[in-house]
Amino acid sequence: MEGTRLIPRTPSAYAYPLLIKQLLHTPLLYAPDEEIVYRELVRHTYRDFYARINRLASALTSLGVRPGDTVAVLDWDSHRYLECFYAVPMLGAVLHTVNIRLSPEQILFTMNHAEDTVVLAHQDFLPLLEGIASKLETVQTFILLLDDSERPPTSLPLTAEYEEMLKRADDSFDFPDFEEDTQATVFYTTGTTGDPKGVYFSHRQLVLHTLAAGMMLGCFREPRFQSGDVYMPITPMFHVHAWGIPYVATLLGVKQVYPGLYEAGKLLKLIEKEKVTFSHCVPTLLHMILSDPMASKVDLNGWKVNIGGSALSKGLARAAMERGVKLIAGYGMSETCPILTAALLKPFMLDWDIERRLDVQRKAGFPIPLVDLRVVDETGDPLPRDGSSAGEIVVRSPWLTQGYFKEPQKSEELWRGGWLHTGDIATIDQEGYVQITDRLKDVIKSGGEWISSLEIESLMSQHEAVSEVAVVGINDERWGERPIAVVVPKLGSKARASEEDLRAFLDKFVNEGLISKWSVPDRIYLVNEIPKTSVGKMDKKEVKKQFEKK
Amino acid sequence: MEGTRLIPRTPSAYAYPLLIKQLLHTPLLYAPDEEIVYRELVRHTYRDFYARINRLASALTSLGVRPGDTVAVLDWDSHRYLECFYAVPMLGAVLHTVNIRLSPEQILFTMNHAEDTVVLAHQDFLPLLEGIASKLETVQTFILLLDDSERPPTSLPLTAEYEEMLKRADDSFDFPDFEEDTQATVFYTTGTTGDPKGVYFSHRQLVLHTLAAGMMLGCFREPRFQSGDVYMPITPMFHVHAWGIPYVATLLGVKQVYPGLYEAGKLLKLIEKEKVTFSHCVPTLLHMILSDPMASKVDLNGWKVNIGGSALSKGLARAAMERGVKLIAGYGMSETCPILTAALLKPFMLDWDIERRLDVQRKAGFPIPLVDLRVVDETGDPLPRDGSSAGEIVVRSPWLTQGYFKEPQKSEELWRGGWLHTGDIATIDQEGYVQITDRLKDVIKSGGEWISSLEIESLMSQHEAVSEVAVVGINDERWGERPIAVVVPKLGSKARASEEDLRAFLDKFVNEGLISKWSVPDRIYLVNEIPKTSVGKMDKKEVKKQFEKK
Repeated sequence: MEGTRLIPRTPSAYAYPLLIKQLLHTPLLYAPDEEIVYRELVRHTYRDFYARINRLASALTSLGVRPGDTVAVLDWDSHRYLECFYAVPMLGAVLHTVNIRLSPEQILFTMNHAEDTVVLAHQDFLPLLEGIASKLETVQTFILLLDDSERPPTSLPLTAEYEEMLKRADDSFDFPDFEEDTQATVFYTTGTTGDPKGVYFSHRQLVLHTLAAGMMLGCFREPRFQSGDVYMPITPMFHVHAWGIPYVATLLGVKQVYPGLYEAGKLLKLIEKEKVTFSHCVPTLLHMILSDPMASKVDLNGWKVNIGGSALSKGLARAAMERGVKLIAGYGMSETCPILTAALLKPFMLDWDIERRLDVQRKAGFPIPLVDLRVVDETGDPLPRDGSSAGEIVVRSPWLTQGYFKEPQKSEELWRGGWLHTGDIATIDQEGYVQITDRLKDVIKSGGEWISSLEIESLMSQHEAVSEVAVVGINDERWGERPIAVVVPKLGSKARASEEDLRAFLDKFVNEGLISKWSVPDRIYLVNEIPKTSVGKMDKKEVKKQFEKK
Repeated sequence: MEGTRLIPRTPSAYAYPLLIKQLLHTPLLYAPDEEIVYRELVRHTYRDFYARINRLASALTSLGVRPGDTVAVLDWDSHRYLECFYAVPMLGAVLHTVNIRLSPEQILFTMNHAEDTVVLAHQDFLPLLEGIASKLETVQTFILLLDDSERPPTSLPLTAEYEEMLKRADDSFDFPDFEEDTQATVFYTTGTTGDPKGVYFSHRQLVLHTLAAGMMLGCFREPRFQSGDVYMPITPMFHVHAWGIPYVATLLGVKQVYPGLYEAGKLLKLIEKEKVTFSHCVPTLLHMILSDPMASKVDLNGWKVNIGGSALSKGLARAAMERGVKLIAGYGMSETCPILTAALLKPFMLDWDIERRLDVQRKAGFPIPLVDLRVVDETGDPLPRDGSSAGEIVVRSPWLTQGYFKEPQKSEELWRGGWLHTGDIATIDQEGYVQITDRLKDVIKSGGEWISSLEIESLMSQHEAVSEVAVVGINDERWGERPIAVVVPKLGSKARASEEDLRAFLDKFVNEGLISKWSVPDRIYLVNEIPKTSVGKMDKKEVKKQFEKK
């Protein structure tokens, strides 16, 4: 801006770049002896962790990795993955967290598109890589991540095994300074159509996301994530850096527990044994954990869980709260690094009764520090904060992806008008809480009205015989679209969940004026399971496809 | 660095600069109805506060203030000062927080040196400004900050009164984007010699300091500053932006109480009436508050106080803790924005007994997020973290002043070798806690040994008849320097504080091996008061001068 005065620089003064390595200063002094745990297999300290980061950077460098190169990881959640979160970007390279839930063809696409040169792969992914190895265009080196004592046979030309490689490497690496806008990570999301799209984040973006998310989770009551907690992610590390929380956890110097492949029983055992107090996951996984037979035997009282990825239904929220689980809903997406909002209670709400708190805590929440979030109409003008005017969420913050990797046109579309378009429909209430009413692509347009699939799902989830429910719009000649519901009944529930029962259940809400008669689904189907996407969200596109024909 | 890959930019994507205005997104949604209080005079909401920031920016602009101009404020701690903390930098101008404790000649020097064009002055400073007005070289406009209902008579050409000016101004201002390295503030520190020196901070620096300090105070136990607290500063807003905490408090959306001129009785009344839970001050002020006759009538249990500026003596810390005050010592200086460290307890220390906790909590503490702090020997090499190897603290963080305003040579000296030299001598223990042993300029060099004046002061402060004590080095022909102590006896104490008593008290510590016989002061003087600097710290230079002659 014309006339503003930039601060005068002193030649010798250090121009401090925001780099991932700078996040380690505090924990290495504050918590050098705190533990990082991997399943029942590995247990070491932050001091060891730092030495291993140095060894990993030394080893990768001697394998030829240079600043600007891309290093791919295929692993379940592990201490090794955490080491890659730091060592790879810290040496100036780019970390590609491969989405292992994609199809082999899609994984091949992402690895070629990202131009991976070195691949670190857990033994479970050797068969997958064997199948696509001949078509990998840029990979030169495969490194094995081994849990067992013996190497499985493989046709893949392995250069090294991770632990042996670290053992041989120098435990001191001179991590260089470079520009804070240097790319640190890349990963791929599945769009509604076409190939997966890559989003990417810089050192500056990850550092700022860590500080703002840390502040939101720690300084705003209630509940909170703080030093002294024990952290275990239940959002895969390949998926938006496990929401960036491993960076926050490390900065706080808390004990960290990495569970490998997610299995409800194993997760519950780790929660009990390692005294886990803070986790994060999508509703589906929370549902899976709470419905596991072992869940009733583990004390979950006080377990704090950050929920995101899709809407938290009232039924699931109540079930969790009745077990003493403290929920923090939040909102974000791959493109946004991801955290944008958190539904923490305000101090004066803390003594509200559970039902009233539930209504607040299931919302997307209010924007975390530095997030400039608006709900706008179709011309881009902000809508009133009245809790009922719904429009698209557009957003600005320092950690949003600058675009889709090598997709300039889609990037421009994402950022049209200088705001990142989330594709989510929401309202903001007078207390400042954002509530997502639908995905732009999931919203049901019926006879000129918008029907919120999320709202109907949330109401139906409160029926005691409903385990999971998806509401989607089906093409309709007369009305454009009409809603249908797909329901997974709860096993062992005494209540029945026939179409008539559920319809009667919904009619109650119609009579109370909560929803319009128009938004009650035309058909309610009982199914054994609802299709899921690669990150465990309900795949509404697939549901639509399946039931369009019926 | 060669070869690193910068993130690809999308033309339409918003390049988010770290600007002070961005700190307001969260509190305006989270706490629009929370209060900002000024003494018993003013009480308004965050919503009002934002409208007033807009009005202030509109008014200043119509008075001719342009980006790059410098606006000076002379005020006690007030809601108006907080409005200036935001409105002035947000319109692209520079806020000069005038150090009103300096002599009129020094204030004149700083206002000319900073090139102030507009001055906002509380009525108490009209006489001062009248005295220097004819020598102010750049000031064009004076605005009155009025507490009383009537304007005091003045010869100063006042352009407006603040409230009237705001009332007339537009409550909507389009705050522009500009580079995050734009200068936001300037203020002056008194050096040991010569004219005051100006230090300056950019928007980026203040935003990052806010996030890191907020995270440290909120996410690290224990105690903590968090949403729901009630904040009242007791470090003047002209002094390093009241340690930057008003920015943290506003981001958290907490109730804020600004007390005007500090008087112990008035502060205690505000603590009681407004239910203040978090403050910060130098030890001298805590001492003043706790020794006020009214202190015994106010419940201070649970009051959290961040202490910095100078060492917290064991005597004062114990007196505070016995009243239930929760102390958080910290360390920083004007040049460092200021916070570098905080002495929070680690989770495993929380159940230690009071004496053991006291030893930890009085230290400078461990570095807050992003602070790279080293204790180095004279060649610049880091010393072992053994709790005994003492050397100078050098530091890097994203919020350190880039230099002294218009003093390139002193700036280079401050930053020699790429590290900011604090001039403080410290050790780091095995738990990572920094402990200041002395100022480089205060350390007593006697017969080739270093004597820590802070250590002797802390021991003497534990004598029940000692209210305050300063230990300084006096020139000595034979030994270079020898320590002497200057003591203010405690009023009404039953114990005597003669030179012999205090000497016998110190001899006990010599016999216990805590200090060497060599470090016991040669003389102990009883005085009525110890000279203070403009910000309330003991003025050891002055003590030295007074007792050098004796």
